Amino acid sequence: MNNPSEAFSAALDGNILNAIQNCPDFDESAVAAAEMAWAQKTKPLGSLGKLEELVNWMAGAHGDATLKDDSFQLNVFAGSHGVADEGVSAFPNEVNAQMVANFHAGGAGINALCNAYDIKIEIFDTGVATQTGNIVREEAMSAAACAAAFKLGWESVPEQCGLFAVGEMGIANTTIASAVIAAILGQDPDHLTGLGSGIDPERRALKIGVIRRALELHQEALENPWEIMRCLGGRELAAMAGAILSAASRRIPVMLDGVIATAAAALAFEIQPRAAAFCFAGHCSVEPGHIRILERYQLKPLLDLDMRLGEGTGAAVAMGVVRGALRAYHEMATFESAGVSQL
Amino acid sequence: MNNPSEAFSAALDGNILNAIQNCPDFDESAVAAAEMAWAQKTKPLGSLGKLEELVNWMAGAHGDATLKDDSFQLNVFAGSHGVADEGVSAFPNEVNAQMVANFHAGGAGINALCNAYDIKIEIFDTGVATQTGNIVREEAMSAAACAAAFKLGWESVPEQCGLFAVGEMGIANTTIASAVIAAILGQDPDHLTGLGSGIDPERRALKIGVIRRALELHQEALENPWEIMRCLGGRELAAMAGAILSAASRRIPVMLDGVIATAAAALAFEIQPRAAAFCFAGHCSVEPGHIRILERYQLKPLLDLDMRLGEGTGAAVAMGVVRGALRAYHEMATFESAGVSQL
Repeated sequence: MNNPSEAFSAALDGNILNAIQNCPDFDESAVAAAEMAWAQKTKPLGSLGKLEELVNWMAGAHGDATLKDDSFQLNVFAGSHGVADEGVSAFPNEVNAQMVANFHAGGAGINALCNAYDIKIEIFDTGVATQTGNIVREEAMSAAACAAAFKLGWESVPEQCGLFAVGEMGIANTTIASAVIAAILGQDPDHLTGLGSGIDPERRALKIGVIRRALELHQEALENPWEIMRCLGGRELAAMAGAILSAASRRIPVMLDGVIATAAAALAFEIQPRAAAFCFAGHCSVEPGHIRILERYQLKPLLDLDMRLGEGTGAAVAMGVVRGALRAYHEMATFESAGVSQL
Repeated sequence: MNNPSEAFSAALDGNILNAIQNCPDFDESAVAAAEMAWAQKTKPLGSLGKLEELVNWMAGAHGDATLKDDSFQLNVFAGSHGVADEGVSAFPNEVNAQMVANFHAGGAGINALCNAYDIKIEIFDTGVATQTGNIVREEAMSAAACAAAFKLGWESVPEQCGLFAVGEMGIANTTIASAVIAAILGQDPDHLTGLGSGIDPERRALKIGVIRRALELHQEALENPWEIMRCLGGRELAAMAGAILSAASRRIPVMLDGVIATAAAALAFEIQPRAAAFCFAGHCSVEPGHIRILERYQLKPLLDLDMRLGEGTGAAVAMGVVRGALRAYHEMATFESAGVSQL
């Protein structure tokens, strides 16, 4: 585990730090038990491919191959970014509050997808009324503000859950995510930055310049993932990192969404590397930084559907695939029970 | 349209031939109407990627962008192949009847996946008790037998349906599918043949030799898709080809499964090229012939999940993705209704 600075540590809940320190190991014996169960099902060995892999991973996360809990939950965190003032997004900042209202009214893409796949959705406003610090001029958050957002995310995770995911809303947060990914990978943002929610090449060039300036301003802080989170992150990223570490500490598997949720996950993995095994990459975003940060943790995206909406929508569709995988695992007959000749 | 030989034509139902001749055109104006509806939804333009594409395609197939009919159906056709006697599969031929019983009892993979995504499943035994002719020695079917299987498939399609798919069961039918694909593409089977349900490289070499012998024996028939179907196909392939042409003639969109269903679809497209626009490639099978035959019709697979089970399982998972896409299309708020600022 990577520890926070002394000042940051004082702002964080000691029980949470202990729980992160004691993050459990992924359980390979439960994976083996799930593989044995699949081997009895009426189909050629391994022929359900990634569907089997998903189930095996869930067994390893839970440490239990029975997988009786079929409750899925997705928490959406909304934030607001000072760097939006630099003109990095095509959308105005007031969209954050409007979209939070839309989430609560059930009108957003993530609401419809959660309805489709029986996923419980919860919305968390990490403070859209107050922008974080503009990262080209100052730290995004104080230690206290970052710790509060992290704790909000940590506490948002249900006690028990079959499969969990996080999503987000925050105008300009592909800029934030690209900065975080560039800091973790130690790479120039040019290779990692795309068109976000739909900007033109000119605005993309501006965005890359903004990220470079931010990386330079905060370069001394970029050795420590907690400081990357605090200086470059947003409140919704800190909350998602907290939620992912919280889920891992409870052995709850997490389906990752696109580039922004994965940037938050990367912060979580840099803090506690054992958390990575509890996460599955749900889809591949069109943002170029996404596949690069996934590769650092040997994560391969399940789906590639040209999605770039955020909100957790890619994770939700992947959770829909898990619905099918779990039904096959639980409902298929065995060679013996069905009287089918085996190899 | 490619017409059958005179002898084959006499065996076929004249009304069916007329309906194939009069296959409707895909409706680009309904696609445009769906695109306009998406443009009003509270999300960046195009940001749901393939989910939007799926909905737009369904609108174009139905000729109607309202897409009110959310009934999905998947028909499974089981057959039995004389070429199984050549030892091309690892499974014994009696598995066909055992699996038909398993489908009826609800214990197969396709049953579980149809349950997961609210897909009505119907099972059709095209004659598993009687093997077709062994294609290395004789024609697989007489004109009468092939026409009967084709008609069974044609008539299996519901009058109305939001989205339709076909699946199959038939030991040795990856051999049949590879032979059909090699005949259509005019390519050597070595590049098109994989490990089927799980054979070793030695048996794969035997399988390729079997396909080469069959292609040589029937080479004079391979100019006409009806003859490819009759000489090299199986009853379940003829039934699936009939079902796909029947669906297209009723403007019902069809989600394609893996290599065997797609070989049947290729026969359908060679008979009536207009049918191809009514089909979407649900997934990419690990069988190498699959992606090659899809390319012939400019079809790009939605999913790539390392699946190789058949039965329609890949199509069913893809239909699960369509469930989410349709919910987003129908339930998302517009910028105006939600009071969200637009670009």
